Amino acid sequence: MDLTKITSPSFLKNMTNKELESLSREIRSFLIEKCSITGGHIGPNLGVVELTIALHKAFNSPKDKFLWDVGHQAYVHKILTGRADQFDTLRQYKGLSGFPKRLESEHDEWETGHSSTSLSAAMGMAIARDIKKESNYVVPIIGDGALTGGMALEALNHIGHEKKNMIVILNDNEMSIAPNVGALHSILGRLRTAKEYSKAKEELEVLMKKIPVLGGKVASTAERVKDSLKYLVVSGVFFEEMGFKYLGPIDGHDFEALEKTLEYAKKVKGPVIVHVITKKGKGYKPAEEDTVGTWHGTGPYKMETGDFVKAKAKGPGWSNLISDSVRKLMENEERIVAITPAMPVGSKMEGIQRDFPNRFFDVGIAEQHATTMAAGIATQGMKPYLAIYSTFLQRAYDQVLHDIARPNLNVVIGIDRSGLVGADGETHQGVFDISFLRHLPNMVLMMPKDENEGQHMVKTAFEYNDGPIALRYPRGNGLGVVMDEEMKTIPIGSWEVLKEGQDACILTFGTTIPMAMEASSELAEQGIDVKIVNARFIKPLDENMLHELLAKKMPILTIEEAILQGGFGSAVLEFASDNQYVDVMIDRMGIPDLFIEQGNVDQLLEEIHLTKEDAIARIEQLVKSNKVIGSKLV
Amino acid sequence: MDLTKITSPSFLKNMTNKELESLSREIRSFLIEKCSITGGHIGPNLGVVELTIALHKAFNSPKDKFLWDVGHQAYVHKILTGRADQFDTLRQYKGLSGFPKRLESEHDEWETGHSSTSLSAAMGMAIARDIKKESNYVVPIIGDGALTGGMALEALNHIGHEKKNMIVILNDNEMSIAPNVGALHSILGRLRTAKEYSKAKEELEVLMKKIPVLGGKVASTAERVKDSLKYLVVSGVFFEEMGFKYLGPIDGHDFEALEKTLEYAKKVKGPVIVHVITKKGKGYKPAEEDTVGTWHGTGPYKMETGDFVKAKAKGPGWSNLISDSVRKLMENEERIVAITPAMPVGSKMEGIQRDFPNRFFDVGIAEQHATTMAAGIATQGMKPYLAIYSTFLQRAYDQVLHDIARPNLNVVIGIDRSGLVGADGETHQGVFDISFLRHLPNMVLMMPKDENEGQHMVKTAFEYNDGPIALRYPRGNGLGVVMDEEMKTIPIGSWEVLKEGQDACILTFGTTIPMAMEASSELAEQGIDVKIVNARFIKPLDENMLHELLAKKMPILTIEEAILQGGFGSAVLEFASDNQYVDVMIDRMGIPDLFIEQGNVDQLLEEIHLTKEDAIARIEQLVKSNKVIGSKLV
Repeated sequence: MDLTKITSPSFLKNMTNKELESLSREIRSFLIEKCSITGGHIGPNLGVVELTIALHKAFNSPKDKFLWDVGHQAYVHKILTGRADQFDTLRQYKGLSGFPKRLESEHDEWETGHSSTSLSAAMGMAIARDIKKESNYVVPIIGDGALTGGMALEALNHIGHEKKNMIVILNDNEMSIAPNVGALHSILGRLRTAKEYSKAKEELEVLMKKIPVLGGKVASTAERVKDSLKYLVVSGVFFEEMGFKYLGPIDGHDFEALEKTLEYAKKVKGPVIVHVITKKGKGYKPAEEDTVGTWHGTGPYKMETGDFVKAKAKGPGWSNLISDSVRKLMENEERIVAITPAMPVGSKMEGIQRDFPNRFFDVGIAEQHATTMAAGIATQGMKPYLAIYSTFLQRAYDQVLHDIARPNLNVVIGIDRSGLVGADGETHQGVFDISFLRHLPNMVLMMPKDENEGQHMVKTAFEYNDGPIALRYPRGNGLGVVMDEEMKTIPIGSWEVLKEGQDACILTFGTTIPMAMEASSELAEQGIDVKIVNARFIKPLDENMLHELLAKKMPILTIEEAILQGGFGSAVLEFASDNQYVDVMIDRMGIPDLFIEQGNVDQLLEEIHLTKEDAIARIEQLVKSNKVIGSKLV
Repeated sequence: MDLTKITSPSFLKNMTNKELESLSREIRSFLIEKCSITGGHIGPNLGVVELTIALHKAFNSPKDKFLWDVGHQAYVHKILTGRADQFDTLRQYKGLSGFPKRLESEHDEWETGHSSTSLSAAMGMAIARDIKKESNYVVPIIGDGALTGGMALEALNHIGHEKKNMIVILNDNEMSIAPNVGALHSILGRLRTAKEYSKAKEELEVLMKKIPVLGGKVASTAERVKDSLKYLVVSGVFFEEMGFKYLGPIDGHDFEALEKTLEYAKKVKGPVIVHVITKKGKGYKPAEEDTVGTWHGTGPYKMETGDFVKAKAKGPGWSNLISDSVRKLMENEERIVAITPAMPVGSKMEGIQRDFPNRFFDVGIAEQHATTMAAGIATQGMKPYLAIYSTFLQRAYDQVLHDIARPNLNVVIGIDRSGLVGADGETHQGVFDISFLRHLPNMVLMMPKDENEGQHMVKTAFEYNDGPIALRYPRGNGLGVVMDEEMKTIPIGSWEVLKEGQDACILTFGTTIPMAMEASSELAEQGIDVKIVNARFIKPLDENMLHELLAKKMPILTIEEAILQGGFGSAVLEFASDNQYVDVMIDRMGIPDLFIEQGNVDQLLEEIHLTKEDAIARIEQLVKSNKVIGSKLV
């Protein structure tokens, strides 16, 4: 069938399982082809083709509510709700989002991007439904990885207590982003292998009857019987203890099993959890064979071979560069312990994991625990390194504040993917970290201008012994500069003059430095001589240099790829105000007071006026205004 | 014995249980007496007298590590580690902290204040120990309430997976701050009542032998047997499923049981959880009889009667005022749903709970879940009200950002105890909320000048339909102003001129307004005429008024009881810069780049130079500088 002709999932109601299987094949081909061009979360989506179809057949969206946890596995849902025709624009500027979007469809009532939110939101929807005396199903679909996030567990605890009607689909693919860790994962593993016992309750009576037959053997076989019984009773007992009716595990690619179980789940009063086993990447061999998470989310690839189409990059990948610098230091510094919350692949920590397995900890999707665990390690005189994406560090804000910054512990935080990230859109832009870290007492925050300074900052961070220090670095690749052989330390709070100038000064750092340099070249042609400073320490500021600039009354433009409110530019304004520099022009460029949607980073920068042309115009204006002010002053 | 003579807990080693019981009585008397004068967390501490003594007898602190979750139950620990002589200064300026403090004692390796951090930190300490090949016990002590916090569950999951040696003491007093909620609480309840089955494993074999005796009755009694079996196997199965050896439940006031179990726990390889049942408030009748949490933390009281010594207050308590205003609106607005994370007493929501039990949800210590659940409710067109202390809202930063502000949902957040809170010290000061909320797109943030404006802001918040809106209010009581009979709405983003003036302007809001008014009176006597503006909207700013002030080049002083970095004053600086007002003096008063310790709020304000005298000096300086600048301008 032509998938782009689908307008609503109601056509599924009368289809036979055979027809659904055929539809599944078509959807898989469609996804493999489309994602080969746009890139996207192909692995997770191939895993939920049958599950999504079965859900849309069993329930009536949008009356019934689907909540896709994390949200990157909603492509099939998008196809079935009339959005197949937009897949050529997937994850592109103004195109189809890679996540559920309220503005995109009435079928997307819950927007996500971050993990482990669906159960809490589902509880909210169930509460609203019951107060309004409405009747519908609330169906969160959550992966086994997302289930270990603290807020999902908080929600399980509350839902089990309140006994609201809700059908939780546990999409268990044994792997969320990277292979999962944690005791819960082991529980699921036991449940999976205990399939033969899955009808625990019904079979218990049968078994109880058999026990007398064992007669005198009972004592000697007690241990074995106990284990069997435990399996029986325990099958799902974790969830039953939490107050849920547990159903499963069932094969998530078997329409008959799915239909039967979902229909049964609809009749259950109170919260029920349906444990569905799926295979990530199913139906596409390169993705099926992935064991580490390479096919979780990808760029474009050659459909026939599964070879990734690599964009040419000048320098090394930032995640690689930073992790490898940490790994090098670990060779001589035994106190370093590296931690990631489920991002060993994304943050490129495989080398650390390989070389220092005893000093590497992947804690699963658990940013809060990762952060406070780092604090605990630091209390013992060790040097924890916490690698975490900027957008996910948001979830550990209180842990950074209360457990690291307040007691002023020596924790090194590597903030991966700071700044605009592009295709993942507004849930993933790493644009808030400056504003939520800069106001924390004791915090040092820095960003390198290139990969060579990046490696030096890694050393700087581990040599620093006066409290927490965070190193933010962008998504993507370095500039391809020459790397020093030896890693060096950089004085804390020191900025670097990249180019002298007399008429105005640009203070900037990280990714926006090349743009500032280009702007200054063009301005030079107009006779405007701009000084460029690599303001590599966002906190503390280089106060000596600022005093010098402000005393000279040089007009200043700050540029940052971060939200403007409370950002680096504000720090400069605060400094000028605190030191009573009144008649100095200071202008700020950065990200405006908006959530920035998906798109190519260059397109986004253009949209928010964070380009070379804007910098030139701002400097021209500053210089002009400064002359006016200068002329007014006696 | 004289408790103030204790220098180390080693004296416990040779004491008999009888002597320990006598010591317990002395410690209880000491605590009841001292706290009657200073106030403090008397209930939790009376509950852990025997447990703390038993722990210090069984282990060797500081070699072995105690981590007191939340930390308010460490008074007995402080007595046993040589700090009894400082209890007259408990929770006072420069005095003994009400929480563990690294700087106070080598026995306090983990500092806290916020809940649910101890397991993660303990995991960090265990990791460090094992890497360093050291040998010691790591012993987190966590309450049943704190266990429902997401990060504690994240930690359980990771600890159970890694199988590190660790002895978790689950201090189960059936009540953390308010009566606990959640499925985990029910699990603990079942474990408590299943004491007769507590030796589950050993008894299983015995029971198995008995089953044949039941003969033909098995089938008909299967259900009952199943339940028994389930109890047996399930006793602790939640924790065993998580990878812990479960011991208990034991009576936390029985030295013999405590000693026996702790000695056994020390021999267990891998993580073990010791489930200890304690009675909050034990040994002091008024506290023992408390069922709602009044005796969790108190001010001074009359020791003989348990009557609280009430400080005279002019106006109503802020928490009461705000909650009661919400309650009034709930009478006519059926869409309002009120939510608290474990603070029904602290946030004074008992009236809401009583009148609208179906629209009130206490989710337990689970700030993240509470926040995203509110978002879920809002997606259904309802009006969720989330009451949360400023310091605990920190833990839901990502949920406010990602789940509420980003999709721009209509959630009303009541931020309780904003500003300095006093005796609870730096873990509880509500001084970061402006800086962590102001940079969120779509967010409205306001603070009332008095309780009458407070009630109007409650109405304003619920009438607002364009996204999230937060109302911050302080700890303590209102000013005693006359209350309007009708609640009114205030235009979003509108400030209010409280006093006209020509020479300078103070922009301030909330608790610092009276101080500003007094400063202006004294300045008037010197002939300096100061305008005072109630800048009740922190975001959005009153742009019209700002343009007017800045265009007149009136020197501006901003005053806020909040951290200065990225705060309200910075918002004013940003506005002036963005609109190119260059030659205007703007000065900011607020909380400097430090964590503010415990103390009477007035003492703290003096220490950080946030007083009337400072405001006067700043205005004098501003006016003086402004004249110099004015004279330089043509």
